[in-house]
Amino acid sequence: MRLAVIGAGAVGRSVVELAGEHGHEVVAVADSASATVADGTGGRGVGVDPDAVVARKAERGIVGDGDPEDALAADYDVLVEATPTTLGDAEPGFSHVTRALERDRHAVLANKGPVAERFGDLRRAVADSAGEIRFEATVGGAIPAVSTVEDIEPGHVTAVRGVLNGTANFILTRMAAEGLDYEHVLAEAQDLGVAEADPSFDVDGTDAALKCVILANVLSFGAADDPAAAREFTLDDADVSGIRDVPGSALRLAAEDGRTVRLIGEATGETVRVAPRLVPENGTLAVSGTQNIVQIETEHAGRLNISGRGAGGPETASAVLGDVGRLE
Amino acid sequence: MRLAVIGAGAVGRSVVELAGEHGHEVVAVADSASATVADGTGGRGVGVDPDAVVARKAERGIVGDGDPEDALAADYDVLVEATPTTLGDAEPGFSHVTRALERDRHAVLANKGPVAERFGDLRRAVADSAGEIRFEATVGGAIPAVSTVEDIEPGHVTAVRGVLNGTANFILTRMAAEGLDYEHVLAEAQDLGVAEADPSFDVDGTDAALKCVILANVLSFGAADDPAAAREFTLDDADVSGIRDVPGSALRLAAEDGRTVRLIGEATGETVRVAPRLVPENGTLAVSGTQNIVQIETEHAGRLNISGRGAGGPETASAVLGDVGRLE
Repeated sequence: MRLAVIGAGAVGRSVVELAGEHGHEVVAVADSASATVADGTGGRGVGVDPDAVVARKAERGIVGDGDPEDALAADYDVLVEATPTTLGDAEPGFSHVTRALERDRHAVLANKGPVAERFGDLRRAVADSAGEIRFEATVGGAIPAVSTVEDIEPGHVTAVRGVLNGTANFILTRMAAEGLDYEHVLAEAQDLGVAEADPSFDVDGTDAALKCVILANVLSFGAADDPAAAREFTLDDADVSGIRDVPGSALRLAAEDGRTVRLIGEATGETVRVAPRLVPENGTLAVSGTQNIVQIETEHAGRLNISGRGAGGPETASAVLGDVGRLE
Repeated sequence: MRLAVIGAGAVGRSVVELAGEHGHEVVAVADSASATVADGTGGRGVGVDPDAVVARKAERGIVGDGDPEDALAADYDVLVEATPTTLGDAEPGFSHVTRALERDRHAVLANKGPVAERFGDLRRAVADSAGEIRFEATVGGAIPAVSTVEDIEPGHVTAVRGVLNGTANFILTRMAAEGLDYEHVLAEAQDLGVAEADPSFDVDGTDAALKCVILANVLSFGAADDPAAAREFTLDDADVSGIRDVPGSALRLAAEDGRTVRLIGEATGETVRVAPRLVPENGTLAVSGTQNIVQIETEHAGRLNISGRGAGGPETASAVLGDVGRLE
């Protein structure tokens, strides 16, 4: 498949670097201010030079001499939407996706915004298109959460819960392991690059909540007899508490009882909730460090647990390229 | 999709009972000596009566008044092969599948025999057919092992390992928990119906080995530039040790070191090995009771762990019906 990669952050760059290994070719790359498009003079088999694009971004801060519009207008099979997550109208990512669908092409999203905040609009755009959308990379990085729920069929999944944010989990793991308080461990996480300078998206539970909203949308639409009438969720529907107020003492008290604290998100076809919760110390939900875990409650097959790396360029790119493979 | 279910054991009966919930209809059911075929007079929308078929099997030991040949010749979209696993030539299951492919229909297998022992022959039959095969249910019951490896693409999976036999795992878990020896716990497992009267298939590691052989075939064929030249595995290629000779003392010694013993199977594109191994007591591979876990080592996305119920009628039927859904 020919890919147009929109977004040249860690995920976009990893998709550019790994696409060739999966038998795909990148025909266009765009960041917020520039683009490069394969010139096509070499025939269909000539994509952009992945190493050159990544190097140019590192050295000059741009991916090419073209305009982002050139990438959106290029001749591709699948548009990969990997621009930063935005809330509310989820722009410009939402329009990148609908532009692809209007041209009867496919879109694969790593950007949570459109899937969490405008799921109904996306579904309507897909209904009017020969193209499809996939968004495995929006939930749990390398963990195949969305496709596993789809294969079991959402009507037979009663709930999905888990540890969906590696930054918050790292902080709680270190607080428990070292008996340190939140502020101290946050500073450590920022030094390691595990937490951002402004960590609020992660520590306030917003990132985990967006992922749960996406799962609730998948469950709701999948189970509905009439998808057009299915309940649509957005971030506003989520009941969210983060980890800023978890004191070190809570973890010590929990440990005396063989428990610990994790930021757990849960989605059903009706509710979305994110909050710190007590879990058994050696139990399945008590994953460590930046690991994520997704727990799927099914009607006939009991509980499935899937754990792995929830974030990272190559990990998320792996999910994107898995989706491209499922579109072939 | 219209299903012909060949095999009326726990898995076949569960597929018959659950197919309707997934929007499919069962048009034929066969066991080793009988069959029932929907009469078609009601038009395409009339399948067999699931409850009647299951009740008849329970009361009379047969599924209908027809001959198994009637089911194989019926008008179906997908043949579900759920007859008991046989080794070597993997008959009669192998021929049930090739018969479907010769008729350009699909086949979904719960029967490990053909996939473990005649993978190359199956692949050649698929190449000559408009039909496809899927076999999620042959490895790990409800755990989506095969489809997850497929989505990551076998060329990017370096190894798959895990606890793949619930009977052996239950026995080792109970030996460790209660300090009892193998013979004592085996008797308990047989009383509970977790182990069969002749438990050798499970406790000698043969069942786990067949699943690992299947995974090795998936890895080998998926990674090969030329599938026709890919290495094909059979049970004979597997290096297998079971749990009969694990003494209670080994588990006590392991516990002193924070470890326990589990029957671990591992497959790469080059080797298949099943043996009891020491694992950390609270670690990921130390699942309890009849649970299974599949651990997938990937090139770019680290390690994925998927745990859940590895066996059971509804659990395995769930995997079969997931495969049918992926064929639509």
